[in-house]
Amino acid sequence: MKLWQKDYVLNSQIEAFTVGEDYQVDQKLVEYDCQASKAHASMLYKIGILTEDEHEKLCNELDRIIELHKNGRFTISVNDEDCHTAIENYLTESLGETGKKIHTGRSRNDQVLAALRLYYKEMLLDAKKKILSLQKAVDTLIKTWGSVPIPGYTHTRKAMPSSVGLWAGALKAALDDDLLQLKSVYDLIDQSPLGSGAGYGVPLKLDRKSVADDLGFAKVQENPIYVQTSRGKFDAALLHFISFVLFDANKVATDLILFTMPDFGFFTLPDTFLTGSSIMPQKKNPDVLELIRANYHQVLGYEMQVKSLIANLLSGYHRDFQLLKKPVMYALDILLTTLSMLTLVFENLQVDEKKCKNAMTPELYATEKVYDLVKEGMSFREAYQRVAKEESMLKKR
Amino acid sequence: MKLWQKDYVLNSQIEAFTVGEDYQVDQKLVEYDCQASKAHASMLYKIGILTEDEHEKLCNELDRIIELHKNGRFTISVNDEDCHTAIENYLTESLGETGKKIHTGRSRNDQVLAALRLYYKEMLLDAKKKILSLQKAVDTLIKTWGSVPIPGYTHTRKAMPSSVGLWAGALKAALDDDLLQLKSVYDLIDQSPLGSGAGYGVPLKLDRKSVADDLGFAKVQENPIYVQTSRGKFDAALLHFISFVLFDANKVATDLILFTMPDFGFFTLPDTFLTGSSIMPQKKNPDVLELIRANYHQVLGYEMQVKSLIANLLSGYHRDFQLLKKPVMYALDILLTTLSMLTLVFENLQVDEKKCKNAMTPELYATEKVYDLVKEGMSFREAYQRVAKEESMLKKR
Amino acid sequence: MKLWQKDYVLNSQIEAFTVGEDYQVDQKLVEYDCQASKAHASMLYKIGILTEDEHEKLCNELDRIIELHKNGRFTISVNDEDCHTAIENYLTESLGETGKKIHTGRSRNDQVLAALRLYYKEMLLDAKKKILSLQKAVDTLIKTWGSVPIPGYTHTRKAMPSSVGLWAGALKAALDDDLLQLKSVYDLIDQSPLGSGAGYGVPLKLDRKSVADDLGFAKVQENPIYVQTSRGKFDAALLHFISFVLFDANKVATDLILFTMPDFGFFTLPDTFLTGSSIMPQKKNPDVLELIRANYHQVLGYEMQVKSLIANLLSGYHRDFQLLKKPVMYALDILLTTLSMLTLVFENLQVDEKKCKNAMTPELYATEKVYDLVKEGMSFREAYQRVAKEESMLKKR
Amino acid sequence: MKLWQKDYVLNSQIEAFTVGEDYQVDQKLVEYDCQASKAHASMLYKIGILTEDEHEKLCNELDRIIELHKNGRFTISVNDEDCHTAIENYLTESLGETGKKIHTGRSRNDQVLAALRLYYKEMLLDAKKKILSLQKAVDTLIKTWGSVPIPGYTHTRKAMPSSVGLWAGALKAALDDDLLQLKSVYDLIDQSPLGSGAGYGVPLKLDRKSVADDLGFAKVQENPIYVQTSRGKFDAALLHFISFVLFDANKVATDLILFTMPDFGFFTLPDTFLTGSSIMPQKKNPDVLELIRANYHQVLGYEMQVKSLIANLLSGYHRDFQLLKKPVMYALDILLTTLSMLTLVFENLQVDEKKCKNAMTPELYATEKVYDLVKEGMSFREAYQRVAKEESMLKKR
Repeated sequence: MKLWQKDYVLNSQIEAFTVGEDYQVDQKLVEYDCQASKAHASMLYKIGILTEDEHEKLCNELDRIIELHKNGRFTISVNDEDCHTAIENYLTESLGETGKKIHTGRSRNDQVLAALRLYYKEMLLDAKKKILSLQKAVDTLIKTWGSVPIPGYTHTRKAMPSSVGLWAGALKAALDDDLLQLKSVYDLIDQSPLGSGAGYGVPLKLDRKSVADDLGFAKVQENPIYVQTSRGKFDAALLHFISFVLFDANKVATDLILFTMPDFGFFTLPDTFLTGSSIMPQKKNPDVLELIRANYHQVLGYEMQVKSLIANLLSGYHRDFQLLKKPVMYALDILLTTLSMLTLVFENLQVDEKKCKNAMTPELYATEKVYDLVKEGMSFREAYQRVAKEESMLKKR
Repeated sequence: MKLWQKDYVLNSQIEAFTVGEDYQVDQKLVEYDCQASKAHASMLYKIGILTEDEHEKLCNELDRIIELHKNGRFTISVNDEDCHTAIENYLTESLGETGKKIHTGRSRNDQVLAALRLYYKEMLLDAKKKILSLQKAVDTLIKTWGSVPIPGYTHTRKAMPSSVGLWAGALKAALDDDLLQLKSVYDLIDQSPLGSGAGYGVPLKLDRKSVADDLGFAKVQENPIYVQTSRGKFDAALLHFISFVLFDANKVATDLILFTMPDFGFFTLPDTFLTGSSIMPQKKNPDVLELIRANYHQVLGYEMQVKSLIANLLSGYHRDFQLLKKPVMYALDILLTTLSMLTLVFENLQVDEKKCKNAMTPELYATEKVYDLVKEGMSFREAYQRVAKEESMLKKR
Repeated sequence: MKLWQKDYVLNSQIEAFTVGEDYQVDQKLVEYDCQASKAHASMLYKIGILTEDEHEKLCNELDRIIELHKNGRFTISVNDEDCHTAIENYLTESLGETGKKIHTGRSRNDQVLAALRLYYKEMLLDAKKKILSLQKAVDTLIKTWGSVPIPGYTHTRKAMPSSVGLWAGALKAALDDDLLQLKSVYDLIDQSPLGSGAGYGVPLKLDRKSVADDLGFAKVQENPIYVQTSRGKFDAALLHFISFVLFDANKVATDLILFTMPDFGFFTLPDTFLTGSSIMPQKKNPDVLELIRANYHQVLGYEMQVKSLIANLLSGYHRDFQLLKKPVMYALDILLTTLSMLTLVFENLQVDEKKCKNAMTPELYATEKVYDLVKEGMSFREAYQRVAKEESMLKKR
Repeated sequence: MKLWQKDYVLNSQIEAFTVGEDYQVDQKLVEYDCQASKAHASMLYKIGILTEDEHEKLCNELDRIIELHKNGRFTISVNDEDCHTAIENYLTESLGETGKKIHTGRSRNDQVLAALRLYYKEMLLDAKKKILSLQKAVDTLIKTWGSVPIPGYTHTRKAMPSSVGLWAGALKAALDDDLLQLKSVYDLIDQSPLGSGAGYGVPLKLDRKSVADDLGFAKVQENPIYVQTSRGKFDAALLHFISFVLFDANKVATDLILFTMPDFGFFTLPDTFLTGSSIMPQKKNPDVLELIRANYHQVLGYEMQVKSLIANLLSGYHRDFQLLKKPVMYALDILLTTLSMLTLVFENLQVDEKKCKNAMTPELYATEKVYDLVKEGMSFREAYQRVAKEESMLKKR
């Protein structure tokens, strides 16, 4: 039964279309919704809407749902629409009138947002851990191979001397910036929506602060209309953060795809990381790096989905927002997986010192020649032009 | 077993990551791959690679796979990587040496493309049918209510008199253009990739034309490198086509969301099409229209995924292309579903003649007043200014 | 003076904001607007709205404006808003009452669209010429160097033997598909909007067919609401076409950036095509190829601008559409320039036969070894596995 | 003359293509480049590369350039490529050998980044001021009209009672979040790139900290490769921030376009803010609101340009990055202008109390009826269903 069940039955095609994949997608949210519902029930008890007994029973049943869900035995059917309905229906079935009280003082709108934000926060903390692990793997590479020279490139052309340490250090520094941005987006999301109802509050004196504290939110998001407006806005910020991190992964994967080409060969990956071809027996392909590279673009598409979908809409909830769930969830999964795979890559990356040194050809040192002249007192631009002429003549020979 | 199985075992994390969701996504391709494999086997027989007996056995087994698949009994495991491997493995298990011959003269690259293009072509034909059905529903509305006047808007402000027929006719005309573009993208995709191998042909004299004819492709895509280059390019064109059609759905849904507001009320949908709120008992919401509107943006995101992913890559296949499958398949599903739902909406749309007529307020006829003066001989701009003054004075009263 | 001038003066900040850059952007449209205005005047004469004398005078003045504009002496001021107003103001100043009649039977909405479509059509014809020139340059390269072998790559790894001819032929084939799509988008745009007014027709019996014929449009776009709806829709289609072509340029530029690296060296560009570095005297950089590659992304952004901007809007004109002009115009410029530059690149590309041949290392022929065994009767998969073992042992030595 | 001038002259078509619009775009950067060059010169003096006299002369000339530029008399020609070259050429012309020393210890790469980041930082501070002004205007509206009731909407349907204060408060709260994100992106950008050269440092002992302090950067961005990698990454973050703020503008403009429709009429704008139509004399259109709405999409396109362009590229500078300048600069202009215009709108917005109150129809109070029953002890879901039945019967009458 739907929360809003009326005296007519929804057209079945319309029902299937509007529910969409929510009943599956929502599996990720069951536990978070139960936690938020428990905090909500505690507050209702505190302000006198629920008796002590009702409160206890609701919390016990919500714990039971969490348990069932962990064991894969809490199902959400198409007819339930989503996890929120499934949970209320479960409570009403097992507790009767008491179950019918759980929705007092809230709307599905603030309920969905509470569950999503709790979930986002946990995923971000997970991402933080994975970024730190990746940095550790990068550090190990630097400690082992940092001083090995490799060419530095600009315009995909040899430019000046670089090193394994300098190259890997760039990723480490990038991840430092990512951690700062992670904190910023975490803080943004860390606002409790509960008590904002469907965007226009609830005609009941709620203790919004107490629920927020209980759930570990840093603050209450006061304006109820803004709670709804911020729905896609926060999702967009989260997706931007994910593409921000995945850009670093894209960059380092692009580097490694070239640098592990046998023609360059600065780095190698173990055979067990490489896949083959259905037709060419000699092939060993860096699919793992290619998919890391490609994942950036997947997320870019999801970011665009969200940023385009939320615009030109009147204030207040629209069913369009239902389509925000999937892109963000997918993007979070992609982020966590990509960080793990990149860590695995760095933990297993080998440096071929000989190939690296062989690549350090003379033109890489042209700028040093300029600075030798500068140190002797020649002006930079003069020195530059003299060396340019020499280099040009060397090439023509 | 993988097609490229070597003397080492792929790292299991890498395996899970690289296979991704392919083994599930590929369910949609099983039949198309079998059809293409049958045509391929026939050609191999024709050019003397397979004996008559081998050819017959392969075709029989491929038909068996199609049958199993239709009954949901053909499974693709993670270890199989994808449907193509699962099919070859099946053939080898049941036919031994003969099964090991099916991959002669092809690569998984041209094999995937063949299956995808057969699938795309069928989906496009399905889309065509659905567009025609929608046009029929629009026609019926026009026949029934076409002459009822409604205001025409510019800048979301009343502008000049319009009518239900004019408004619905705009959708019909848009769909006519969509059909022309459908033909154009169909023709683009209607090129046989088989025989191009992994992008550099196959060292064997194949009869590419015969396979193409057999599968109903309009022509052979000759250059094997271009077959690979065109992979994402054709997908991008298909996604553009889908967003092109969904734009029309977005437009008409946007119109209907406003025009079915009780404040306007030109149109109504049956209650069985409307959903409720978990908190507000009076609500009847047009979720179906909102999701039709939002689907445009979903596809826009998928389009961007594809168009961004394929760029800045060297000629030839990359594993990145694996990620092209999902966005196109999802977008095709969205297209077909949205067209069906919009047809259902039009078949059930009611016009509230009274509310329409009440909305025909005097300012809508200001331009007609101008033209009355023009018909009396006044120059247009003079007439315009005189009426502007009158209108302004009317308002101030 | 504005066409809609009322009894109040627009706030000057609002004026500057709403006019934006239109008064500059519109320089590209002056001639097309004059042509359309001439055809419109002829039709007004034909249906008896203008006298022969008025018609002649208007056409003469419009020709004068075209002449002035060609000499850079027709200016559009901020106060004029756009070229359409500037032109009507000019006519009214020079012809008095007759000038005030030019706007009879049209709105700025259909007027803008007429000018834009005439302009788009001419740009597309120009693009067609440039694509043909590029194909010619590619052909010359193929004739001169086609048979020189180069490695074919998959996964950015050596795969199978390719050749300069095969590689360049892929671009040629891609451009063939582009020409077909060009025709398709040209046909889409080739519909006359004139007579649709502001989206709801004009209360006057116009001869829309005659204007369309006069301007060389293939047909009249009948439904006036669809004329407005199709505004961004056609622009989106045009931008997709441009990104479709630029994708080919992106691909070939990506290839050339790698293949002209001294480390590969299959191709070279003349020094006069290469730029230097402010600090590294030895550098010669392929900026021209990098910008060709990057231009694809510029257009992708413009495409997204348009496709996102036009959604979730009620039927009928919105000022938002003003922002469609710039992205399309910029993208057309980018398309034409990129095609010219790529042609120049191909006309000057040199092949280094020696480096090409040196790159043809043994692993490229592993697939041929498989097929040698197949020709001796071994099943493909057996042969594949035997060669795979041999290749693996060769590497380990 | 180019900084990298060699013994050949660049092909003139290639030159025009590669310089692009840089020589115009760079007008915005002249002052910032001069400031950075002064700080650089001071550091060179400090570490003994420049004499006191040379340092003084360079600083004086750089001040002169700033002065000339302010008066519109410092020109950058196509041949100069960009402002950085124009400035060095100017110094060399006026100071001879001393001028040729200014580029010691830097590359155009870190030089461009320094100028851009100084410019970005100033623009962000400007944006901050404008956000605060907008909040002030919103506050004034709330103080004057805050308690006037208006309907709250969900699904574009009347939902529950809202008020002018609640509605405007949502924007204010959104802007608070924007200010926090502004700080976050400001901190990200606030890292000095100077001394990183072309991405691989400079063979000279520079005092990077001193330059950073001198220019007011919070810290030195240590890893020189990351300086280059972060180029597009920071631009992407900046563009995301801009779209993040403009989303709020898009939302409030969308609301106002509907709420100022005469059919609703909750708010009005002065006539001097409204534009007319070329054909319909009665029209007064909210173009200003429509362009505010549309600007979000413009920036979304620019964001996509940048995020797509920077991917799949090897570490180190590429000429592709040249195309990052325009989208960010345009987006910053759009941000500042949109904030100003929105402030102007809020400063001039009038509330029509009577129309607001008339819109407060009974169905808006259905949820209150539910809570009246809840307060009497009925469970929420029971109460909901009872009121739902009542409402349904009321409608049917």
